[in-house]
Amino acid sequence: MTVTLVYHARPEEVLITVGSQNALFLAIGILAKPDRLAVIEEPGYPDFVETLRRSDAPWRCVPVDRDGLDPAKLPDRTRLVVATPSHNIPTGATMPLQRRMDLLARAEVDDFLIIEDDYDYEMSYLAPPLPALKSLDRQGRVIYLGSFSKSLFPGLRIGYLVAGEPMIAAARDARAIMLRHPPTHLQRTTAHFLALGHYDAHVVRLREEMQRRRIEMMDALGRTEFRIAGTARDGGASVWLSGPDEIDSMDLAEHGRRRGVLIEPGAVFFETPPRPCPFFRLGYGSIPSDKIRPGIEQLQKACDELR
Amino acid sequence: MTVTLVYHARPEEVLITVGSQNALFLAIGILAKPDRLAVIEEPGYPDFVETLRRSDAPWRCVPVDRDGLDPAKLPDRTRLVVATPSHNIPTGATMPLQRRMDLLARAEVDDFLIIEDDYDYEMSYLAPPLPALKSLDRQGRVIYLGSFSKSLFPGLRIGYLVAGEPMIAAARDARAIMLRHPPTHLQRTTAHFLALGHYDAHVVRLREEMQRRRIEMMDALGRTEFRIAGTARDGGASVWLSGPDEIDSMDLAEHGRRRGVLIEPGAVFFETPPRPCPFFRLGYGSIPSDKIRPGIEQLQKACDELR
Repeated sequence: MTVTLVYHARPEEVLITVGSQNALFLAIGILAKPDRLAVIEEPGYPDFVETLRRSDAPWRCVPVDRDGLDPAKLPDRTRLVVATPSHNIPTGATMPLQRRMDLLARAEVDDFLIIEDDYDYEMSYLAPPLPALKSLDRQGRVIYLGSFSKSLFPGLRIGYLVAGEPMIAAARDARAIMLRHPPTHLQRTTAHFLALGHYDAHVVRLREEMQRRRIEMMDALGRTEFRIAGTARDGGASVWLSGPDEIDSMDLAEHGRRRGVLIEPGAVFFETPPRPCPFFRLGYGSIPSDKIRPGIEQLQKACDELR
Repeated sequence: MTVTLVYHARPEEVLITVGSQNALFLAIGILAKPDRLAVIEEPGYPDFVETLRRSDAPWRCVPVDRDGLDPAKLPDRTRLVVATPSHNIPTGATMPLQRRMDLLARAEVDDFLIIEDDYDYEMSYLAPPLPALKSLDRQGRVIYLGSFSKSLFPGLRIGYLVAGEPMIAAARDARAIMLRHPPTHLQRTTAHFLALGHYDAHVVRLREEMQRRRIEMMDALGRTEFRIAGTARDGGASVWLSGPDEIDSMDLAEHGRRRGVLIEPGAVFFETPPRPCPFFRLGYGSIPSDKIRPGIEQLQKACDELR
């Protein structure tokens, strides 16, 4: 049985933002308080940490496993959780349905809120996306963030916040003082693109292309000594890899760069990175599929140089 | 003798922002501290107050006269001044050169910083614009804000901050967490428009058009009982008016609206508005000149109704 749950937001429950980072910043600005412990995933997106660091809230990291954030590991007195159930950054880990239910149940018992960053949910070409926490939430505990900057083009900076009406009203006031509003003609153009169905068609093409790239990527990686350390069960646009234990991915990045291959060294995703840190992320969202195999080959050569 | 002083900013001294409100928000976020008294103009732009209200800084209003902010009236222990030397909002008052020098001298003696919002400086068609505080500043005490949203189109949301390199670096970091960056294709398009000279040509046409509108406006107002309470010596795109003392401009706005004329009642520009508040602002930046006279006539009729 495929579960398809959709949350139909009313206009008063939506705020358009300058990308999803702006949505996160607004949400944290409203919800983070000195007496509210915030929890983020580790490994996780470095700017979740940085956004909390600039807020008033104390924060703590909770390790993610291959099913994402484990609700059982949340510390006592958690008041706010920033989660990426569709795809953890950087591992791609997807939170299964049961764990989503458990997280929401725990939120009710312990009385905390959840900021759900539905990062790259469009990139689900191997399996249908699971219902967002927001669509399962019956108590208004989930604040949902999304972006069109990834799926349309990175310079667009159009994101959105979906939450209860009072939260959206507060975020709208904060946004007005921060920047007034995202450029209106970009909002209008994006709205037309969506309303005319082009966005849905675009996402279908994007999924097909990402699937081709992922097949190339997995096939090329199979001929290397890099191990898959994490990947999205439904596809995604990146893989999380581990090189040889003794090689730090910063060094691998430097040697790769000299050969024209750019990777994301993994240390930035950890509060306390392993040393050396063998992990790194390879995104293929903007790499044509015919460049993937030669790139991976160069990266293996860069790795060989480091021995 | 015409004084023309220009500040040539290096790239490291400029940050592009999502409109000038975003530049103000970033600057206040960095400079406002609980132990630094901030000063704003009264009457003044309501969102200067609102931005400071959301910051950590104590703030106080200082009355503006027809020459803008009077440096002699700044309270002791002023640490930050938000000033609009080109055109006070809403009176249009322009700060003469001597007062600009005095303000900078006072800033040096008392050791405070100045945020200069160079609102509508392009709209100087009756007299050349005076040198910005930033161009007179020899001590790096001025943080300069500007916008292309007024002169190009309101939905553009492209502004800028000009300040010392460390301040710009801090603002860039804050901007990254707040919203990453303004949409890149808008930045690129605006840069092309400027580089190819279209912006300069556009501003010349804009000035000619604003001058026509101002002549219409002044002529039409001469046939009413509304008195000019403030206007920019170099032109501007709005006039600050006073109706009969006993009529509150909120009531005038309501009666005007029913006749299809929208005005800005003046109370929002004061910390402590007079009651009744006879002041109101009329902007003509988006009113075709042939609609000005009929609109003013309708507004006089609305005023007559209120007796």
